[in-house]
Amino acid sequence: MSRMTILTEAELRAIVTLDLDAVACVENAFRALATLPVAMPPILRLDIPEYRGEVDVKTAYVPGIDGFAIKISPGFFDNPKLGLPSVNGMMVLLSSKTGLVEALLLDNGYLTDVRTAAAGAVAARHLSRQDSSVAAIFGAGVQAGLQLEALMLVRPIAEARIWARDAVKAEMTAAALREKLGIAVRAESDAANAVAGADIIVTTTPSTEPLIKAGFVSAGQHITAMGSDAEHKNEIAPAILRMADLYVADSARQTRRLGELHHAIAAGVMAGDAEVTELGQIIAGEKHGRRSASDITIADLTGTGVQDTAIATLARDRARAANSGTTFES
Amino acid sequence: MSRMTILTEAELRAIVTLDLDAVACVENAFRALATLPVAMPPILRLDIPEYRGEVDVKTAYVPGIDGFAIKISPGFFDNPKLGLPSVNGMMVLLSSKTGLVEALLLDNGYLTDVRTAAAGAVAARHLSRQDSSVAAIFGAGVQAGLQLEALMLVRPIAEARIWARDAVKAEMTAAALREKLGIAVRAESDAANAVAGADIIVTTTPSTEPLIKAGFVSAGQHITAMGSDAEHKNEIAPAILRMADLYVADSARQTRRLGELHHAIAAGVMAGDAEVTELGQIIAGEKHGRRSASDITIADLTGTGVQDTAIATLARDRARAANSGTTFES
Repeated sequence: MSRMTILTEAELRAIVTLDLDAVACVENAFRALATLPVAMPPILRLDIPEYRGEVDVKTAYVPGIDGFAIKISPGFFDNPKLGLPSVNGMMVLLSSKTGLVEALLLDNGYLTDVRTAAAGAVAARHLSRQDSSVAAIFGAGVQAGLQLEALMLVRPIAEARIWARDAVKAEMTAAALREKLGIAVRAESDAANAVAGADIIVTTTPSTEPLIKAGFVSAGQHITAMGSDAEHKNEIAPAILRMADLYVADSARQTRRLGELHHAIAAGVMAGDAEVTELGQIIAGEKHGRRSASDITIADLTGTGVQDTAIATLARDRARAANSGTTFES
Repeated sequence: MSRMTILTEAELRAIVTLDLDAVACVENAFRALATLPVAMPPILRLDIPEYRGEVDVKTAYVPGIDGFAIKISPGFFDNPKLGLPSVNGMMVLLSSKTGLVEALLLDNGYLTDVRTAAAGAVAARHLSRQDSSVAAIFGAGVQAGLQLEALMLVRPIAEARIWARDAVKAEMTAAALREKLGIAVRAESDAANAVAGADIIVTTTPSTEPLIKAGFVSAGQHITAMGSDAEHKNEIAPAILRMADLYVADSARQTRRLGELHHAIAAGVMAGDAEVTELGQIIAGEKHGRRSASDITIADLTGTGVQDTAIATLARDRARAANSGTTFES
């Protein structure tokens, strides 16, 4: 007989929240990615053009973590016409030792949201000024709110500006976050004004043209770009990567191919073979993070399988402790 | 609310058997692979050397089939020391239209066994002589028996020889198959003798050195090689591919990289860019199969994601009809 635990989205929301444990778990994953022989194969991608569908499958094995996640992320963009969400998704957690299925996490993308936001907190912790109090968030989707919430876990954020292409959505998101987080949050329709005076700027959009121009940025700012998870996405002007004092990748292999770095290389602003600092190397103390209050720093986050493995094992551990989920024997 | 059906190995064994429906379903999959814009991305592969573990993830979308399978196949070769099987595995069946998970098939590799054997029947139906009555099976594992059973679905097999490296295992397998299938089955320790006089030869081993030498083969024989699912595996002498009247691949893209063809190209016996007939093209009537009773024919089967998608949707349909499995709502 083998036994697995099935956890629904509602159960997962009850036991895994965006908190300092989630941040620590993702921080550990980045440290492992930069310092251990992590196995993270290229993403398996299936396209179903008839239904405007796509499926990504990601996995990563991290030595020292006793499970590994296989994440299945479908996006079917005609679903809203059928009254269904575009994005679904689940993770299968297998034992690193036996390959047996330990848990099915039917999260509909919730755990990805948490691990993505937690990565923003990790980047801010190592790259932004400790006294950062003003945040500028680009985008008005789920990640916009979660990234702001994540920053508040690690920095004394007291004020935030929300910029979004759709000004009405920016206003609604600002109002909702003001209510939820209890800090001053306002919509700002001018991107330059949103950036001016911000200590931390986080971009969370699917933009294909840079939203942050080089002239917007000033000394001491930290920028996290997390919307760029595909070749055509680009949120930050390439010139900013050259003017920055420190550019940091979640995975250099990925950002050279998918991230803001990829566009800076294409624009001739960065060398394709330039040595790139990874976030995990800073966490491990192998490379320096921010060195002065006037540094301009950039974190280029494309999303990694190690984050999925980390958050999935956290979810399993929490479920065990809470006796949550449905046990299925076969 | 979304709803999925979970089927255990025992439930799947009760509803999906190696029969002419399974053969027809795999035959349709091969026809689609050769004639429709099937999407079959490269296999995702994760290695966990600490535990001698490996995981393959395969998928394929076949236009006209309303679901697609994502198959997770772990092999952990230290498991027997823990009293666990080396090979496990499951399939997740998603809707081709919405990407929603429809079924979890906890088959532990059973459906792969069935679809692999069914492919052997499809190859024999299109490539062996109609009056084939003598089979030689190389190997003594699960596929050895299933391949023989599959041949009996499409050809009047009355006699079989089992060759295996381990002569004791060959004897045991021959006895078990004699009992199960009710035909004359004997172990044969000499590979040349096993092949002599056989109408159909099927190799099911993980051999890395050719078991079938060129001198063993004679006019009118059909050979199916199905053990070669990785670069280093090789069951048939490369010279046989040149002397054959017809060489057929399940997927030319795969056999050039993994199959017997790959070794024949490496040996300089076949051209790397030679046009290759695919089994599906013969099924569709686009290319010829066997043309005379004296032809020597070869089918090189490496295993394809379209077979998984085909058998998984068959399993889901059978489960619906039988009201089998456990419904899970989330």
